[in-house]
Amino acid sequence: MADLHLLSPRGFVASGIYAGIKTKQVPDVGLLLCSAPATAAAVFTTNKVVAAPVTIGRTHVAAGKLRGVVLNSGNANACTGKQGERDARRMCELAAAVAHCQCKASEILPSSTGIIGHMLPMAKVERGIVECGQSLGDSREHALLFGDAIMTTDTRRKAAATTVKIGRQTVTLAGICKGAGMIGPRMKTAAPHATMLAYLTTDAQVAAPVLRKLMQRAADGSFNAVTIDDHTSTNDTAVLLASGQSGAKVAGAAAVRAFADALDEVCQSLAYQIAADGEGATKVVTITVRGAKTPKDAQLMARAIANSPLVKCAMNGNDPNWGRIVSAAGMCGAAFDPAKATLTLQGTTVFRSGQPLAFDAAAVSESLKAAEVKVDLACRLGKAEATVWTCDLSKDYVTINADYHT
Amino acid sequence: MADLHLLSPRGFVASGIYAGIKTKQVPDVGLLLCSAPATAAAVFTTNKVVAAPVTIGRTHVAAGKLRGVVLNSGNANACTGKQGERDARRMCELAAAVAHCQCKASEILPSSTGIIGHMLPMAKVERGIVECGQSLGDSREHALLFGDAIMTTDTRRKAAATTVKIGRQTVTLAGICKGAGMIGPRMKTAAPHATMLAYLTTDAQVAAPVLRKLMQRAADGSFNAVTIDDHTSTNDTAVLLASGQSGAKVAGAAAVRAFADALDEVCQSLAYQIAADGEGATKVVTITVRGAKTPKDAQLMARAIANSPLVKCAMNGNDPNWGRIVSAAGMCGAAFDPAKATLTLQGTTVFRSGQPLAFDAAAVSESLKAAEVKVDLACRLGKAEATVWTCDLSKDYVTINADYHT
Repeated sequence: MADLHLLSPRGFVASGIYAGIKTKQVPDVGLLLCSAPATAAAVFTTNKVVAAPVTIGRTHVAAGKLRGVVLNSGNANACTGKQGERDARRMCELAAAVAHCQCKASEILPSSTGIIGHMLPMAKVERGIVECGQSLGDSREHALLFGDAIMTTDTRRKAAATTVKIGRQTVTLAGICKGAGMIGPRMKTAAPHATMLAYLTTDAQVAAPVLRKLMQRAADGSFNAVTIDDHTSTNDTAVLLASGQSGAKVAGAAAVRAFADALDEVCQSLAYQIAADGEGATKVVTITVRGAKTPKDAQLMARAIANSPLVKCAMNGNDPNWGRIVSAAGMCGAAFDPAKATLTLQGTTVFRSGQPLAFDAAAVSESLKAAEVKVDLACRLGKAEATVWTCDLSKDYVTINADYHT
Repeated sequence: MADLHLLSPRGFVASGIYAGIKTKQVPDVGLLLCSAPATAAAVFTTNKVVAAPVTIGRTHVAAGKLRGVVLNSGNANACTGKQGERDARRMCELAAAVAHCQCKASEILPSSTGIIGHMLPMAKVERGIVECGQSLGDSREHALLFGDAIMTTDTRRKAAATTVKIGRQTVTLAGICKGAGMIGPRMKTAAPHATMLAYLTTDAQVAAPVLRKLMQRAADGSFNAVTIDDHTSTNDTAVLLASGQSGAKVAGAAAVRAFADALDEVCQSLAYQIAADGEGATKVVTITVRGAKTPKDAQLMARAIANSPLVKCAMNGNDPNWGRIVSAAGMCGAAFDPAKATLTLQGTTVFRSGQPLAFDAAAVSESLKAAEVKVDLACRLGKAEATVWTCDLSKDYVTINADYHT
């Protein structure tokens, strides 16, 4: 689906421009609008420190209808108190004015990403939104400019799209996202977490409660299963706008399942791209825990392995130091019995039933040099399973994050 | 108390020799013995993956009496199944034979630290223990050799000692420890966690139940409050042997309090030294959370801040990027309201009541270059407080841990 983009679903236009918030001359203000109110569902950070745009966005999406999204990068508008909330509302007002004379500010979802604790440079933001309104369009170029406007330490664009047959009609589903650091989302419907932002569009017609349920499900199996540094952001947001303009109605079990699968596919592709572009990452590490006692245990173990700096450094050094993986599973509080466990690295079983197995360390080390590494832990305690995507921890991660601010 | 060492308390001898387990020619087998059965208390890792020496050590210390400790570095004897347990028991048998014809293997606590998942080279270990038996002594030099035998990625020795008046008598309390990586201890009496090993001696006379209670208390306020990488090890152990040979009996509220304070002092000094020698560390970061709703919340927030790679990298870069600290407190599940919170970095308040404060970023950055950085978060939600010691995350941490094994 390489020819599809965020504006392929019928009814959407977008733009992105450089407003001078960032030092680097790249887009930093973006606008995405639907030609009529779209059904909308969003998940937001679960951090108790919530950025102003999330506070405002939660109330705006509650009605289940949105006309669009306005965003900026270079400043997170977080820890900015009441002034921050006024600024986020002002962004919505300007976007609404651009959208249509009938559009209300409460139909716009605001998003910000960047440094925490600085007031938004509103003169620049306001000029930027107005300028965005003058350059809207539905071309691939417009989709790219909008996507570029949310990038921070990302080194590449992240996009995914697919089509799905609903009855006799074809529906398009597309998304873009950003995120490279402060990634450990645990987003909930009207409650998300890591500066991970995702914007999804579709021309399917879906009832708001259904869309909400499907969005939470898709986020749990994708964005919420990615961790770069397990640091839940103040700004995490994933929002899906359904214009309904394909005329295809997602109703009935079969249609809902088909649409849900397409949504999962797009979200998982985006999530995987986030892991691959993790700050300083040289590889994606896919951790699958099987046979856990409970789904919560499976999640706990997969996340503990994914978040261990020791495991991540070993992956960076192509080091089959599997004791770090097994001990990470044992330390997280989940039910775990090493005497029943089996650990496999890139297809080579290195530990079984409490015993180390003889293996060719040089060959396994060589296999760890791949762009994608698979770690499989079988627990033999139950039937629960979880997969988490992460990346290695490199010296570049330290460089990027030791010098981000000053 | 610079002239005191591990063998200053009456009744102890020790030694450490190079047995060829490590590549580098430094002591890797050590023995600490008491001239008569000592009252003993220990805390061990809470990891569910428990190294063989911990499994054996837990049963040996259960009776509340020990004659000594036998240890090796260069190999953790973890994930080594039944053979590993046989090897740990064999170490105790040999140490007991060295100690005294009346000493039983069950009166010796075994310890190992190093790589996980490799069988102990027992021929070397056995020769090493016998050789240790031939070179025991109670001098400072002997104490140093014993301590050196447990070091792995440590760059310096860690020791502390003090004296305390119990009635009219003076009691000596001393300890050594190791630990630089895989540090996130959450040790419990007969249940510990991070390769952090601490050995403490005293000539006070203390009843086993009292010693056990004081040891858990001291560990909670010291070793369990240190995190380098939050990776609970399979081998963590802290053990205190009380020879009773000063004749001073720790009984009655005043004596117990005096002894407990001395024990806390020694353990906190050792814990601080672990943070300062964290792998790749350039500074110690002391995180204090005040006014939390519950003690558990205070701990959760302090640990979330201490374990955030983003916070740790900012500390490495002397970057007053305080949004990472506030957001870490908000993401850990503890009750937290940014509108009530105040954050102070090295004495400069940067955030108060949900609002960023203007501060001299260059001056604060300069102050973060100190060897010790203090982060204070006041929550105004209750009266609970917690302090956690950690270190920064540097490129050297990645170098050390990407290449540890191969």
